[in-house]
Amino acid sequence: MMNSQQTIGIVGGGQLGRMLTLSALPLGFRVVVVDPSEDCPAAQVGAEQIKGDYYDEAALRKLAEQSDFVTIEIEHIDAKVLETLAAAGVKVNPAPPTIQMIQDKFAQKEFLAEAGVPVAPFAKLEGADDGAKLLQQFGGKMLVKTRTGAYDGRGNMVVASEQELAEALERFAGRKLYAEGFVTFEKELAIMAARGADGTVATYAVVETKHERNICVEVLAPAAVNTEVAAQAEAVAKQVAGHMQGAGVFGIEMFLTSSGKVLVNEIAPRVHNSGHWTMNGAHTSQFEQHIRAVAGLPLGDTALSVPAAAMVNILGEGNHPTKLTGLAEALAVPGVYVHLYGKTPTKVDRKMGHINAIGETVEEARDRARKARKELSI
Amino acid sequence: MMNSQQTIGIVGGGQLGRMLTLSALPLGFRVVVVDPSEDCPAAQVGAEQIKGDYYDEAALRKLAEQSDFVTIEIEHIDAKVLETLAAAGVKVNPAPPTIQMIQDKFAQKEFLAEAGVPVAPFAKLEGADDGAKLLQQFGGKMLVKTRTGAYDGRGNMVVASEQELAEALERFAGRKLYAEGFVTFEKELAIMAARGADGTVATYAVVETKHERNICVEVLAPAAVNTEVAAQAEAVAKQVAGHMQGAGVFGIEMFLTSSGKVLVNEIAPRVHNSGHWTMNGAHTSQFEQHIRAVAGLPLGDTALSVPAAAMVNILGEGNHPTKLTGLAEALAVPGVYVHLYGKTPTKVDRKMGHINAIGETVEEARDRARKARKELSI
Repeated sequence: MMNSQQTIGIVGGGQLGRMLTLSALPLGFRVVVVDPSEDCPAAQVGAEQIKGDYYDEAALRKLAEQSDFVTIEIEHIDAKVLETLAAAGVKVNPAPPTIQMIQDKFAQKEFLAEAGVPVAPFAKLEGADDGAKLLQQFGGKMLVKTRTGAYDGRGNMVVASEQELAEALERFAGRKLYAEGFVTFEKELAIMAARGADGTVATYAVVETKHERNICVEVLAPAAVNTEVAAQAEAVAKQVAGHMQGAGVFGIEMFLTSSGKVLVNEIAPRVHNSGHWTMNGAHTSQFEQHIRAVAGLPLGDTALSVPAAAMVNILGEGNHPTKLTGLAEALAVPGVYVHLYGKTPTKVDRKMGHINAIGETVEEARDRARKARKELSI
Repeated sequence: MMNSQQTIGIVGGGQLGRMLTLSALPLGFRVVVVDPSEDCPAAQVGAEQIKGDYYDEAALRKLAEQSDFVTIEIEHIDAKVLETLAAAGVKVNPAPPTIQMIQDKFAQKEFLAEAGVPVAPFAKLEGADDGAKLLQQFGGKMLVKTRTGAYDGRGNMVVASEQELAEALERFAGRKLYAEGFVTFEKELAIMAARGADGTVATYAVVETKHERNICVEVLAPAAVNTEVAAQAEAVAKQVAGHMQGAGVFGIEMFLTSSGKVLVNEIAPRVHNSGHWTMNGAHTSQFEQHIRAVAGLPLGDTALSVPAAAMVNILGEGNHPTKLTGLAEALAVPGVYVHLYGKTPTKVDRKMGHINAIGETVEEARDRARKARKELSI
C-alpha cells in the first residue's frame, strides 16, 4: 500500500463497483466498498470490503471514516446517513439530496417536470378510484410503479384495464405508488452525462438501448437517430445534469416518441449499464470519468474513440454453478472485448458480464457483439 | 469466486504482473502470483499471492499446482524448475527452454546469430587478454556484459580502454561475461510480437524507445522511420518470434544503425515496458494479448487504435515514502492516461508508474505525456 494514499469509498461492490475499482486503482487510489455479499465482485479486483448492507449505518459510517471521497454504485441505499455524513464534512458525491430525490421515482418525476424537462404524464396513485380515473386520463394504458426500490423492471406493471389495476394494487399492496402514461416509443435512448466537481457537464454520445423483460440487453453507440433528435437528447441530458447536485456520472434514460419527441424516462445517479460501451468505445470510460468526478479531478474526453460500438449483456440463462465456456470462440470474433463480473452462481437474468464490440458501423459492432455473446455460456 | 474458474499463475507480481492481472480478471480468470514483496503490485489488484522468491522451488511448485496456465513477468527465475513442471504436464508459456536461452544473454546472441537474425558482433569474454583482443577487434569500444541477471543497465559497462576493461573485469569478478561491439545507433526501436498457442505471430507497430541511465524513459508509437526501415524491423521481429518456443508476448529491442540497418539488441520473453503504450494506443493491450496467448485463446487485433501514442515512465526522483501529487494537473492534459503501480516507498529510478498519451501525431502525444509527467510527483 502507498503512504498518503487517498481512498475512494463506494456504497456497493457489485459489477459497477468492480469496474469503478478497476479504474480507480491505476490512478493511485485505494478503494473500500460496503457490500453484503461474501467476496463481492469489487473485492475480487482489489477493493477492501466492509461486509454490510447498504442500509447498515455502522458500515456506512465505517466507510466514511476510511474514505477521502464517498460515492455509490447503487441508489437503493441509506441516503439519510450519507446526508448526515456530508453535513459532518465527508465528501459524498453525488449529493445525498440528489440521490434521495432519485430514489423516489415520483419525486424524481416531479423534480424533472418542475425543471422543465420533458417527461411522460404522471400522477400519484393512492387507490383504486384514483387509478381508474388516471387510467382513463392516460388513454386506457398506464404504468403502475412503486415509488421506491424499483429497478430492472421490479416494481413496474403495465395496466390496461380495471382488472389489471386491481392486480397491480394487490401486488404492490403497502407500497407507495404512482402512475405514468404509457409511452409508445420508437426507440429507447440514453446519454451518460458527467458532472465535474466544478459543475462542468460533459456528455457522451446518445445511444440506443434495448430492453427485454425490463432488463437492458443491448446498447448501440451512437444511436441511429437524425441530428435533430440527437441534439434534442443532448440538450435534455445537459439540462438534467445541470440540475443535479454534486459530482459524478449520471445515466439519463429517454424515450423517443413516434412524433419525434424526446422524453426523460428516468435518471440513475451513478454509472449505468447503458454506459458500459464507453470502456472500449470512448476516450474515457464512464468508470474512470466517475472516479475523476467524485475525486475532484478534471473530466476526461467523452468523444467516441471508434466509429461505432455496441454492448450486449451476458445474462444468466439458468440457475447453476457458474461455468464459463466458449471464451476462445467469443474472442475470435474481431473487435470484441469480454468483461466478466466474477459472480457465482449463475441465475436466470443475473448480469454475469457484458461484451463490447467496436466496428466501422453500429450494425457491424452489434453483429460482432451478438455473435460473441452466442458463443459464450456461463 | 467462480466455480470451475481457470487460474493463471504468474511468476512475479510487480507492475507487469499487476497489469496482466488487470487484464486477466475481466476475462474470467483467477490469478495467482509468486512474489517476495509484501502486498506486491499484482496482489493489490486482486491476484492471490504466494510469498516467495522467483527461485523458490516450493513456491513455484505450489503455483503450478494451483494454475491451469503458468507464465512469467520476469525472466530472472528458476527456468529449470519450470522445465521440470512443463515435463510433468503443466502448461508453461513461453517454453522454459526459450526463457532459459534468453536468461543467458550470450546464449541469446548465439541463438539469434544462428537463426540468421542481424545482431552486433559479440564474443565470449574470459579474461584480460581475451578482452584486449576483443577491444581491438571491435574498433576500440565495446560493451562488457554479464551473461545472466542483467537488466535496466545493471550488469553492463561500456569499455573503451584497457584501464576500463580492468575496471569492468574487477566489477564483474566471478561472473560469466561476454563482449559486444559498441553500436552507434540513430534510434532505438522495439516491436512487441505475440505468438499464439498455434504458432500464429502478430506484431504491434514498430516504436522508438528512449533510454536514460539504461532505463527506458519514453516510447513513441509509431516510430518516425521510413517504410523500408519499418518493414525491416517488422521482418526481423517476425523472424525472432518465429524462433521462440511457446506462446506469449515478446519484446524485441533493436538498434537502427546510422547506415539504416536494423540489429536486434535483446529479447524479453514477456510483456515489456516498450509495449505499455498498447494499453491506450492499440486495439488489444499487450497484457490482454499475453493472457490470450498463454491461455490458448486467439490473439487480438494489434493495430494502432489512434493515430499516435506515447509513453513516459514515472521514475522515482528521490528516496522517500510514496506521496502522489499533481494528479489533477496531469489529467487536465488532453489525451492522457495515468497508470500507477502501487509501489512504496519511492526510490530513485524506481518504476512507479507510467503515463500514456494519444494524439494526432507522435509529437503531440509525446508532448502531452511529457507535460503530464512534469505535473506529477510521487
